[in-house]
Amino acid sequence: MNKPQYLRIKDELGSQILAGGLTRLPSERQLCELFATTRVTIREALVQLESSGLIYRADRRGWFVTPPRLRLNPRHTSNFHQIVREQGGVPRTELIEKRAIPVPPGLRERLGLRPLDTVYLLRRLRFADGRAVCYCENHCLPTRVPGLLELDLAGSLTEIYREHYGLDYARMRLTFHPTALPDEVARLLGATAGLPALRLERLNFDQHGQVLDVDLEYWRHDSLEIEVDTAE
Amino acid sequence: MNKPQYLRIKDELGSQILAGGLTRLPSERQLCELFATTRVTIREALVQLESSGLIYRADRRGWFVTPPRLRLNPRHTSNFHQIVREQGGVPRTELIEKRAIPVPPGLRERLGLRPLDTVYLLRRLRFADGRAVCYCENHCLPTRVPGLLELDLAGSLTEIYREHYGLDYARMRLTFHPTALPDEVARLLGATAGLPALRLERLNFDQHGQVLDVDLEYWRHDSLEIEVDTAE
Repeated sequence: MNKPQYLRIKDELGSQILAGGLTRLPSERQLCELFATTRVTIREALVQLESSGLIYRADRRGWFVTPPRLRLNPRHTSNFHQIVREQGGVPRTELIEKRAIPVPPGLRERLGLRPLDTVYLLRRLRFADGRAVCYCENHCLPTRVPGLLELDLAGSLTEIYREHYGLDYARMRLTFHPTALPDEVARLLGATAGLPALRLERLNFDQHGQVLDVDLEYWRHDSLEIEVDTAE
Repeated sequence: MNKPQYLRIKDELGSQILAGGLTRLPSERQLCELFATTRVTIREALVQLESSGLIYRADRRGWFVTPPRLRLNPRHTSNFHQIVREQGGVPRTELIEKRAIPVPPGLRERLGLRPLDTVYLLRRLRFADGRAVCYCENHCLPTRVPGLLELDLAGSLTEIYREHYGLDYARMRLTFHPTALPDEVARLLGATAGLPALRLERLNFDQHGQVLDVDLEYWRHDSLEIEVDTAE
C-alpha cells in the first residue's frame, strides 16, 4: 500500500466528514500543521474532495462541508422555492439581469417564433441556505406574459405566472446531461470553472398545452440528486 | 476583444466541428503548424473542447469528434443494447470481472440482505460503435439468479434474466447526479480522470415487484442525454 500522501489525507478528511459533526474545514494553514505537510499537498487533497462533492469552496471564506443534495423528482412539477422549503432549507432567488432580446436561434423552433422575434430573458441565481446552487436563464414569451419585465422577479416565476397571468406550469419536457461548468457560470456560482455540473433544459407548457417558456439551468454537481421511478 | 489565443483556436475548431464533415482532428503537431502556435496552446484549446463535450481523446490514437449523445428516457424501461441499436449504433458489452462478494454495506438494505450475505458482482464496460461510454457494476442476488456467474455475461443482462430465469425488469428506481470520473473508472473508460460524468444508481424490480439487483453506472458526460416528459 504505497498511497500518495495527498490521497491518504483525502481519505482521512473524507471519513472525518462522513462521520458528521463538521460543517467547515480548518484553514489550509491549519491543515498543513495538522498533517505536517505542505500547502501543495493539502490543496491536492482538498481539490479531490471537492471533485467528489464532499466539500466546496466559498469565495475567500475557505472550505465547507457540502450540505445534503436537493432531491428533485422531474415527475413532480414543483418549483425551486417549494422544493427547498420542503427539504427544510431556506430558498432565495437573485435576479442578475432582465431584458428583451431577439430569440436565440437554437430556441426559436421550440418557442414557435420567427427570426428576430423578441423574448424576455431573465438571468437568475438560486440559493439554498445562502449557497448558490443553480444558475438559471428563462426565455419567456412576451405575448404570453406582457409586462413581465416590470414585475419583481426575485422570487418564484411559477407564482408570478399564476398570480399575474392565470397561467400554470402544467407539463414540462426536460433534457439534461452532465457537463463542465462554463467559466462565466462558474464565476456567478462562486465555483471552480470546469467543475462537473448538470445542464438542464426545460420546455414548459401551461394548463392549455401551450408553450410558456424555455429554461436553461446549470446546477452544481454536488447540489442535487435526481430521482425517477418508472412505475409512478 | 482581447481573447487569449487558445480560446480563439477553441472557437475556430469548435465551429469547424459544428459545421460537420469532421470525424477526427489532425495530430497535435499538425494543429501547431495550422495555427502557427505552440503545443501548450493547442493542448489548452483541445482540453476546453473536451470539457465542452465536442471532442474526446482515444488512447494513443488522437482526438476525435464526439458522436451524438445516446438519448435515454428513464420512463421507458429498455436495455443498453436495444437503445444503441434503435439509434443506429452497434452496441457491445465487455465483462471485466465477475465474482461473489459480501454485500457492500451501502447496498444491504435496498437488496434486503443481512451483513456478509453474498451478492454476485459483475463489472462491465458498455461500448457504442467501439467507444467505451459507460462503466457498470451489477450487484445481483444469488437466490434470484442461481448459477449466474457460470453464464456468458458479455451481453444484455435483461435477456439473460428473461431466457434463463423467466425474470423481467418491470420497474426501476433511478437516482443520479453529475460527478467527476473517479480515477479507476476513468482508466477503464480510457478517459481523463476528473472529467464530468453521470453517476447513476438503478434499483431494479421484477414483474412480481421483487428486487432483482442494484446497478451502479458511470457515464461519460458527452455520451448521453436524458429526456423526461412529465406528462407521459
